Amino acid sequence: MGKNAIVGQSGGPTAVINASLAGVFQACDRRGVPHVYGMRYGVAGLLDGKYVDLSESLRSSLEIELLKRTPSSYLGSCRYKLPALDKDEEGVYPKLFALLQELDIGYFFYIGGNDSMDTIAKLSDYGRAIGSDIRFMGVPKTIDNDLMVTDHTPGYGSAAKYIGLVMKELVRDATVYDVNSVTVVEIMGRNAGWLTAAASLAKAEDCEGADMICMPEIPFGVDNFIQKVARMQAKKKALLIAVSEGVKLADGRYVCELADDARYVDAFGHKNLTGTARYLSNRLAAELGVKTRSIELSTLQRCAGHVTSRTDITEAFQVGGAAAKAAFEGHTAEMIALERLSNDPYQCTTRPWDIHKVANFEKKVPLEWISEDYTAMKDEFLHYARPLIQAELTPIYIDGLPRHTYL
Amino acid sequence: MGKNAIVGQSGGPTAVINASLAGVFQACDRRGVPHVYGMRYGVAGLLDGKYVDLSESLRSSLEIELLKRTPSSYLGSCRYKLPALDKDEEGVYPKLFALLQELDIGYFFYIGGNDSMDTIAKLSDYGRAIGSDIRFMGVPKTIDNDLMVTDHTPGYGSAAKYIGLVMKELVRDATVYDVNSVTVVEIMGRNAGWLTAAASLAKAEDCEGADMICMPEIPFGVDNFIQKVARMQAKKKALLIAVSEGVKLADGRYVCELADDARYVDAFGHKNLTGTARYLSNRLAAELGVKTRSIELSTLQRCAGHVTSRTDITEAFQVGGAAAKAAFEGHTAEMIALERLSNDPYQCTTRPWDIHKVANFEKKVPLEWISEDYTAMKDEFLHYARPLIQAELTPIYIDGLPRHTYL
Repeated sequence: MGKNAIVGQSGGPTAVINASLAGVFQACDRRGVPHVYGMRYGVAGLLDGKYVDLSESLRSSLEIELLKRTPSSYLGSCRYKLPALDKDEEGVYPKLFALLQELDIGYFFYIGGNDSMDTIAKLSDYGRAIGSDIRFMGVPKTIDNDLMVTDHTPGYGSAAKYIGLVMKELVRDATVYDVNSVTVVEIMGRNAGWLTAAASLAKAEDCEGADMICMPEIPFGVDNFIQKVARMQAKKKALLIAVSEGVKLADGRYVCELADDARYVDAFGHKNLTGTARYLSNRLAAELGVKTRSIELSTLQRCAGHVTSRTDITEAFQVGGAAAKAAFEGHTAEMIALERLSNDPYQCTTRPWDIHKVANFEKKVPLEWISEDYTAMKDEFLHYARPLIQAELTPIYIDGLPRHTYL
Repeated sequence: MGKNAIVGQSGGPTAVINASLAGVFQACDRRGVPHVYGMRYGVAGLLDGKYVDLSESLRSSLEIELLKRTPSSYLGSCRYKLPALDKDEEGVYPKLFALLQELDIGYFFYIGGNDSMDTIAKLSDYGRAIGSDIRFMGVPKTIDNDLMVTDHTPGYGSAAKYIGLVMKELVRDATVYDVNSVTVVEIMGRNAGWLTAAASLAKAEDCEGADMICMPEIPFGVDNFIQKVARMQAKKKALLIAVSEGVKLADGRYVCELADDARYVDAFGHKNLTGTARYLSNRLAAELGVKTRSIELSTLQRCAGHVTSRTDITEAFQVGGAAAKAAFEGHTAEMIALERLSNDPYQCTTRPWDIHKVANFEKKVPLEWISEDYTAMKDEFLHYARPLIQAELTPIYIDGLPRHTYL
């Protein structure tokens, strides 16, 4: 009998993270792995003894198709940071490895972003130190697209498609009245502007596109912003502006910190960013006397399972399968990266990379892809992003709404 | 040569208001009406001499298909209230009728909600007073579903479908972490809870649904709300709550007025309601010490052309055509209403109604459709609403995004 596998999902949900889970599960199932366990709520849940046997819940190919079309994390997720190996005062590592031994685990998969790759790096370091033969593989996932090494991350294409689509619809909505107005749309992205940049995809033959794009890569001056809006409005009545939740002043403070709302800090030390668009639209209304509206795309942009990119969902499935295949072949302490072979026609393949080259680094939008005046994207970005939003995976509509599956 | 027609769109946009425009245009075109003019920005734009000849912009059947799939108001819109007939100090009516005569208009169509039907009522009253033979017909449109006489309004079904769909996705997203949390979703609806009630459509075999629904029909007590959430959270970790932007205290103040944000009043004397969910989630966080998130669906819920109900879009097209047909047959001072013949199978027809029975009344959700504890919808509502969200009209995706058309 071969060893068992366990798979977990971690960090913020995406619309396609379950496609990666389906990819891991199906590859293990076809390989004849006796039990494929799923961690409930990631490593944190596993430490509490929470796991399921996926072979019992994913019993049919229809169930797997529904899983691929269900947004967010089927297994539940966590934001949990493993301690440094030399500071494990609570004995987390011995506890985890005892549990893995009890379940007779040979393959450990973790689907997530930067913080999840940190988990894989630490677990494989600890495993090597104690001579464990468990293979630890990371499966990339984040709408933020900020992982190193990989050309892009599964989850980004669908979020970018959603943002491009919503911006097109908001342009139609925002230009409906013949009055001066400014609509400020707040898009996720703490330190990297990949998602906000996707607002530039809205511009096409049939759409004027966004009028300004503000990303965290570029220091933000509130007064400059207001003056620029005033200049633009002299030429165009209804303006639509995309701002990243993570835009920062030259002194490093987030713009949303200028607002007076409460903030909290999560387990990874991340500030909860919200209110950037509201703050800016209130300032514009006060200083320019113009009608403004702020719109936060909020979690809608990461769970829009009804408008995924088929390219993205296919790749999400592939990196799951590739991680399983690599583990079966003896790989460990690696993440599966996507490697773009060509843009036109778009071709992309997978390859494993040393996890230590991924964890705890952040990939930003290259400054040379941003226009000279810092508020638009150049063609280089569009050529990069456009292939990632191509084609659709139609939801299975039942009684008027998309069908999902859940544990 | 027959007379010409003119058509305008007014009030807030919907995802299907252009389908009604297509219905009016196509009926006039097939009838051989020489020119079908479109008011730019409603009656307000027309008063400024802004109009287009639609035969020039809608030249092909593909263009009309795209129009049906383009959200928001193709012609632009306005929020403009005509003066009372005996208080027309600026001579608005003589100016408008002179313009209509100049364009040789025989048929006047106005697509909109309550305020737009007020416009049709006043124009037809004035027309009758001066002996004009122009026929004035109202075409119902509003996501709010608050028009009298009609079983439901075109625009509501698609917004309800969007809300049901988004709530399903948000349930998946909100339940992802194994911690206590409350997500408060703010839904449009100033005085009627039709849209907020649509959150109840999310509940199905594959979805737990919303945990609480708060509508403007029911007086809202902030303390009661907080206590109820605390009791619910003792049994369930992640809660999802739908609140109407228009929920009001027993003394008549809007809940959002308790927040400290600026507000303004529009031309119809309507307050700009926003911040209800934010206020409530801040209160919950402060008093229960729980993780909260507020999400405003904002204008996304009225311009989501990518997820329309085919039933709705078909009916929106039909009421446009029916208005034109009625006008050709000599009707005036009427609105086309939808009349439901049966629920299962769903069958619905159109009939004209006296505009004075529609304008300036608001239809609320019947209290007997709301549960005993005032926070859920009974089956009566579900039987009413479910047929309206059935089937889809797939967008025409080009290069990854839905194709629109615009003037």
